[in-house]
Amino acid sequence: MSTFREDGAAALDWVASYLEDIRDYPVLSQVEPGEIRAALPSAPPEQPEPFAAVLRDLDQILMPGITHWQSPRYFAYFATTAAEPGILAELLIAGLNQVGILWRASPALQELEEVTLDWLRQLLGLPDPLHGHIEDTASSGLITALTAARAAAPDRKVVVCSEHTHSSTIKAARLLELEVRATPVDAAYALQADALDLSDACAVVATVGTTSSTAVDPVAAIADRAEAAGTWLHVDAAYAGAAAVCPEFRHHFAGWERADSIGFNPHKWLFTPMDCSAFFCRRPDDLRRAFSLVPEYLRVNEDVVSLSEYASPLGRRFRALKLWATLRCFGRDGLQEIIREHVRLAELFEQWVADEPGWELRAPRHFSLVCFRRIGGDAENAAIMERVNDSGQIFLSHTKLDDRFVLRLAIGNARTSEADVALAWDVLREAATAG
Amino acid sequence: MSTFREDGAAALDWVASYLEDIRDYPVLSQVEPGEIRAALPSAPPEQPEPFAAVLRDLDQILMPGITHWQSPRYFAYFATTAAEPGILAELLIAGLNQVGILWRASPALQELEEVTLDWLRQLLGLPDPLHGHIEDTASSGLITALTAARAAAPDRKVVVCSEHTHSSTIKAARLLELEVRATPVDAAYALQADALDLSDACAVVATVGTTSSTAVDPVAAIADRAEAAGTWLHVDAAYAGAAAVCPEFRHHFAGWERADSIGFNPHKWLFTPMDCSAFFCRRPDDLRRAFSLVPEYLRVNEDVVSLSEYASPLGRRFRALKLWATLRCFGRDGLQEIIREHVRLAELFEQWVADEPGWELRAPRHFSLVCFRRIGGDAENAAIMERVNDSGQIFLSHTKLDDRFVLRLAIGNARTSEADVALAWDVLREAATAG
Repeated sequence: MSTFREDGAAALDWVASYLEDIRDYPVLSQVEPGEIRAALPSAPPEQPEPFAAVLRDLDQILMPGITHWQSPRYFAYFATTAAEPGILAELLIAGLNQVGILWRASPALQELEEVTLDWLRQLLGLPDPLHGHIEDTASSGLITALTAARAAAPDRKVVVCSEHTHSSTIKAARLLELEVRATPVDAAYALQADALDLSDACAVVATVGTTSSTAVDPVAAIADRAEAAGTWLHVDAAYAGAAAVCPEFRHHFAGWERADSIGFNPHKWLFTPMDCSAFFCRRPDDLRRAFSLVPEYLRVNEDVVSLSEYASPLGRRFRALKLWATLRCFGRDGLQEIIREHVRLAELFEQWVADEPGWELRAPRHFSLVCFRRIGGDAENAAIMERVNDSGQIFLSHTKLDDRFVLRLAIGNARTSEADVALAWDVLREAATAG
Repeated sequence: MSTFREDGAAALDWVASYLEDIRDYPVLSQVEPGEIRAALPSAPPEQPEPFAAVLRDLDQILMPGITHWQSPRYFAYFATTAAEPGILAELLIAGLNQVGILWRASPALQELEEVTLDWLRQLLGLPDPLHGHIEDTASSGLITALTAARAAAPDRKVVVCSEHTHSSTIKAARLLELEVRATPVDAAYALQADALDLSDACAVVATVGTTSSTAVDPVAAIADRAEAAGTWLHVDAAYAGAAAVCPEFRHHFAGWERADSIGFNPHKWLFTPMDCSAFFCRRPDDLRRAFSLVPEYLRVNEDVVSLSEYASPLGRRFRALKLWATLRCFGRDGLQEIIREHVRLAELFEQWVADEPGWELRAPRHFSLVCFRRIGGDAENAAIMERVNDSGQIFLSHTKLDDRFVLRLAIGNARTSEADVALAWDVLREAATAG
C-alpha cells in the first residue's frame, strides 16, 4: 500500500500541476485522426507495469490528444468545469467503489443521492416534493422520461418538440419507436406554443436553453396545453438549469415547476465532473411502473424502493458524492457568484460584438452563450473559426441559424476571467483580418 | 491551488487508510432505512464549506451507511474490486474532465478507448477485427444490442433467452417493446439449445455465467441456430468474461466468437472501478444505422466516426483511462494469477461444503461462485444468511434454484485470501448451529 500512497501523490501532483498550467495548452487538440492510436502499443502488456509508466505515457502519448475542457479559454459547445471538490470526490468514489444495485448494497449512496437531489431542487427553486435521481447523461434522462410517458399513454406514439430540440430527444424517440413531430420555431428560435397540437402526443419536450442558441421555449404556455391534452411534459434544461440557482434568472424557467419531468446536468454549468445528470420527476410512480423489475437474487425484506427501480441501469456509481461535495464547497453563494459572472462576461462580449463594425449578433442572449458572426458569407465565418481553433489559443464551435453559419462563444468554465474573454475577442478579430 | 494540494493529500490519505483498514468494517451496512438521510442537513449550505468538512461528514455520517464492496470478505451478488491503478486513474479522469461527444472533443479519449478495447479483445481470445466501446453498465449494453437487432430485423418482435437471463434483458426488451420468450433451463440451469425456435426472434441472448448460479448457456449450439435463423446473438458474459483471460477456462466460452455482440464488465471481475462495461460487436455498421445522429452543431470536417454514433449517450467519460491503467498495472500475468486464485478458492470452499455433513451443493460450479445450502428448509437457510450478514463479518446473498432458497458465495475481490474464505466457512457453520 506504500506504493498506492506514492503513486497517489504523483497522480495528485500531476492533476494539480495540470490545473495550474492549464492556460499553457492549446485548447483544441491539434493531432490528426489516428495519431494517438498509432503511438500506443497494439497489444496489452504481459507483465505488470508500474503506475509511473501510466503517468509517463499520459504525458508523452495522450496529452497531445486531449482537448482541454478544463481550460478557461474553452468556449465551445457548452463550457464545463470539473472543479476541485468534485475531482477529489471522484477519488473517494473510486476508493469506496459503491455499486448501488439496491438500497442495502449502499444505503449511503441511495440516501445521499436523495438528499443531494433535494438540495438541488431547493437551489433551483422547484416545489416540494419532487422525486430526484442521477443519470449518467441527459440522453439517458430523455429515455427515462419518454419511456414513462409512453407507458402512461400507450396509445399515443408521438413526441412533440421544437425543431431546435437536442438530438437526444430524437435518439430517445427512435429507440422507443415514437414518432417525432418537430414544430417550427419563432424568430427567437423558441417553440411556438399557440401552434401546438398535443392530442395524439404522449410527450412534449420543452427546452430552456437550446444547445444551438440557448433559446427558451415558453414552458408555462406549453404546460397549459400539456395539461389540457394529458400529455407528459419534459423540460430539458441540461445546460441552463444552473442559472435557476440565481433568482434573477428564474423568469426564464416559469412553468417548469409544472413539468412531469426535468433534466438538468450539473456536469455542464454547475462545476461537477462528468458525468452527473439530474433527473426530477413529479410522477415517480409512473417511473416505477415503467422500470421496476426486482429479480429473486435481489429480493430482500427491507421496505425501501431502490433507485434502480426508477430507470434502466441496475448498477449505479456513487455520483451523489461529487455533487454533494460540489454543493457544499461552493455553497449557494459561491455558485451564484460564478454563474452571475459568466452571464456578465457574456453580456460584455455581446456588447463588444454589437459595437464592432463588420460583426453582428445572430440570436437573443439569455444566459452565457453569445451567437454571432462576421458580416459576410458562411465560408468566411467557417474559415475564421478554423483559424481560431487551429491557433490553440481558444476553442469555439458553431451552429446554423436561419441556414447561416453562426459562431458560438459559450462561457461556463469556472476559471474563465474577463481577460480570457477579451483574449477570445482579440483572437477572433485578428483571425477575421488574416483571411 | 495550494488548498487543492492539501485537500487532495487528505483525500488520498483517507482512501489509503480505508483500504489498509478494510477488514475492520462490518461488510454489510448495519443502518436502518432513513438513518443516513436523517443525519444529513435537509437544506444546502449558503456559504462555501472547506473540503475537510466533506471528509469529516463522510466519516461521521456516511460511513455507517457504506456496504464495503472493497472488503475481501464481501461475497454477495458478484464480488468486485476497484484496484489501486483504477482508483488513481479516476482522479486523473476527473482532473482532465474529458467529455467525449465527438472525436475532436477528445481524440485521446476515443483512440485510447479503441485501443484498450482491442487489448481486451486480445486478452479474452476474441477474433480480430471486432468493434469495441465502453458503456456504463451491462444494462445499457443490452439496450444497445437489442436496438441494433431490432433495426436489423424490424418485422421480428421477439427476444429469446433462458429463464435465468439477467433482469436487464427483460428491462431492455420492455423498453424496446419486444416480447421476451424465456425458455426453460436444463438440470445445470443452462438454456436448452435443441428446443430453440428462433424463426420469429430478432435476438437471442445467451449467458456465460448467469447471475443466479453462473450457469453456462451452450453458446456454440445457440450460434448455429441463430445463424440459421438470421437472428442476432448477444452473449452476456458480464461477470464471467474475465475468466476468458485464462486459456484453461475458455472452453466455457466456445462459440462466443460468433456472437453479433458481447457484453462483459471489467468493473465486475477485472479489478476496474465502477462503471466500465465493455461492449463488443461484429456488426458495427448495424449499430451506426440504429444510433447515429449528428446535429449541425457537432458537424466537423474530420473523416472520423465518433464513438457516440454507436450507442445512445452523446457525452462519454474518459473511462478508457481506468481500464488502460488497470490492464497495464496488472498485465496479462497479473490478471490471470488473481482469477486463477479465485477459482481455486471457490473449489476449496466447494470441497469443504461437500465434505461437511448437513450441507449440500446446489449447482455446478464453473467459475468463482459456489451455490450451496444447509440441508433443511428455506426458512432455516434464510435465517442463517440473515445472522451471517448481521454479524458484519462477511456478506453473502441468495438466489432461488428449483424453487429453493440457495446461498451464494461469490469470490471476486482482489484482496480476498484463503483465510477470508475460511473465515466465511467458520461464520456460516457457526450461524447454522446458533439457530
